[in-house]
Amino acid sequence: MKVNRPAVLIMGAGAVGSLYGGMLQRAGARVSALCRSDYELARSKGLKVKSIWGDLLFRPDQVYRLAAEVSTAPDYLVVAYKVLPEIDRAELIRGAVGTQTSIVLLQNGVEIEAPVAAAYPANEIISALAFVCCNRVGPGEFRHLDYGRLSIGVYPRGISEKVRLLRDLFERVGVPVILHEDIVSARWEKLVWNAPFNPISVLGGGVTTTDILASPPAIFLVEAVMREVCAIAAAAGSPLPETVIGDMLEDTRKMKSYKTSMLLDWEAGRSMEVEAILGNAVRAAARTGVAAPHLRSLFALLSLLDRYKPGKVGTKVD
Amino acid sequence: MKVNRPAVLIMGAGAVGSLYGGMLQRAGARVSALCRSDYELARSKGLKVKSIWGDLLFRPDQVYRLAAEVSTAPDYLVVAYKVLPEIDRAELIRGAVGTQTSIVLLQNGVEIEAPVAAAYPANEIISALAFVCCNRVGPGEFRHLDYGRLSIGVYPRGISEKVRLLRDLFERVGVPVILHEDIVSARWEKLVWNAPFNPISVLGGGVTTTDILASPPAIFLVEAVMREVCAIAAAAGSPLPETVIGDMLEDTRKMKSYKTSMLLDWEAGRSMEVEAILGNAVRAAARTGVAAPHLRSLFALLSLLDRYKPGKVGTKVD
Repeated sequence: MKVNRPAVLIMGAGAVGSLYGGMLQRAGARVSALCRSDYELARSKGLKVKSIWGDLLFRPDQVYRLAAEVSTAPDYLVVAYKVLPEIDRAELIRGAVGTQTSIVLLQNGVEIEAPVAAAYPANEIISALAFVCCNRVGPGEFRHLDYGRLSIGVYPRGISEKVRLLRDLFERVGVPVILHEDIVSARWEKLVWNAPFNPISVLGGGVTTTDILASPPAIFLVEAVMREVCAIAAAAGSPLPETVIGDMLEDTRKMKSYKTSMLLDWEAGRSMEVEAILGNAVRAAARTGVAAPHLRSLFALLSLLDRYKPGKVGTKVD
Repeated sequence: MKVNRPAVLIMGAGAVGSLYGGMLQRAGARVSALCRSDYELARSKGLKVKSIWGDLLFRPDQVYRLAAEVSTAPDYLVVAYKVLPEIDRAELIRGAVGTQTSIVLLQNGVEIEAPVAAAYPANEIISALAFVCCNRVGPGEFRHLDYGRLSIGVYPRGISEKVRLLRDLFERVGVPVILHEDIVSARWEKLVWNAPFNPISVLGGGVTTTDILASPPAIFLVEAVMREVCAIAAAAGSPLPETVIGDMLEDTRKMKSYKTSMLLDWEAGRSMEVEAILGNAVRAAARTGVAAPHLRSLFALLSLLDRYKPGKVGTKVD
């Protein structure tokens, strides 16, 4: 690859994909994109991101509908889809992955890398976490409201030259990047916060972090879920520092009142990545023999909420 | 009291109070009522209940606003309020309780009798559970849609002459009554069903019993909560038969798709009796040293849902 102008393909140019794709373009990379709903707009006018980093017009070098249309494999293939059971990521990128392509999973959740790594055993898998508040506001239009830091490392562990080069590109245009030798543990650590606050904010009726921390039974539940996630992480090979729970609670108490990203997804009628964020953790608990009753309760309720819509039915006496 | 025409005072002539008050009147009892919102209507036109037992016009002998207005203490004082933390039942009935008055608690939940029993140590406390689907549809108008069986016994245990007489009155007009030597255990047994299905139906997004039983993680949660309630009941002195969980699940699978009463309350914007139905069970678990993580999770989430309303706030990256 040309070291200063690597070729990047963004798979799934939604809010996150368009923001980071646009920033990589700003940094000088040659950036193409694959998108479905915004395909025509991406070709004709480009994708607009109103960003705290300065507004972007992301005009991909090439716009594709399908990976099979990609003629030259990119240096970095950035997977920016949501992690949903109905999306087979390994299949979707087939045809666009070359022998030298690093596959960057810019996605939420824990234990989301294995299926892709298994399908592309000869390729470098880069695992990336975005701490960002960025949403779709209309066709081909997105809004980056706050934050934007990336945590990046090689899966299952390590930091490679291509990870550093990616970091350098982002830092050239002011995107904060933290490199992780152990990105798997970084995902578990993020889950310590997400596993309680995301579901409770939705299941509690659309409540903020402040509402949650004002309710003694809810605080009890937050702490119980955090302890369970730490236990699962440790059993799965990612022991986290003992201070993580206290630190996160203290940080959350200091924040102003916020809605979680899962609550924003729920309110906007978007999928909530229940499986990637909670389901994978519940399955890791079962695999490693860790009891996680509070986490499983949240998972069961969110699964219902994500799948069923209220209908007209009879009434039950009880 | 005149054995065939006992004096009954209904405290809280809402849906349940008006239905059973009206049926007792139909049975020949002298029935008065205390009500607040429907006071004028109850005096002028009476309270209407469209019932599967035949439509009722409940015209109380006397209508009161306050217990202090009651000049002659009744033989039965039926407390038909919801059990909510903001309602001090012992205070509300003060002034209407005579030395011979039996206090009938026709209310949901577990461990709801003790505060009233403590305030009136010389009076008989009758504990009654209604398995009924009955709702308010407008000012002074109610609808009795289904069921209606009563479970009745003396608190803390036993069956008295006045309990039998009450049963006889109800049976005279076709209201099914089951007498319980151990009404406290009957309340715990009802909770085995209510504790999982009521909260899950609400927290799962307004789902029916059929929806719940179609989701493996939700079935897991239902069974886990049922086991916890049985453990708490046993520790609190009410061991339930081992078959209760299997039987209830089988019965629920056979039922047509139903909405729980708590879901109907939630959808109608009514209070959900979270404290009486779940809070008292959680406190009993803490008192008796029983771990009840799934029940506590549901309690924490319902507490949030019951107290907070969504507001306009910031957004959180996570």
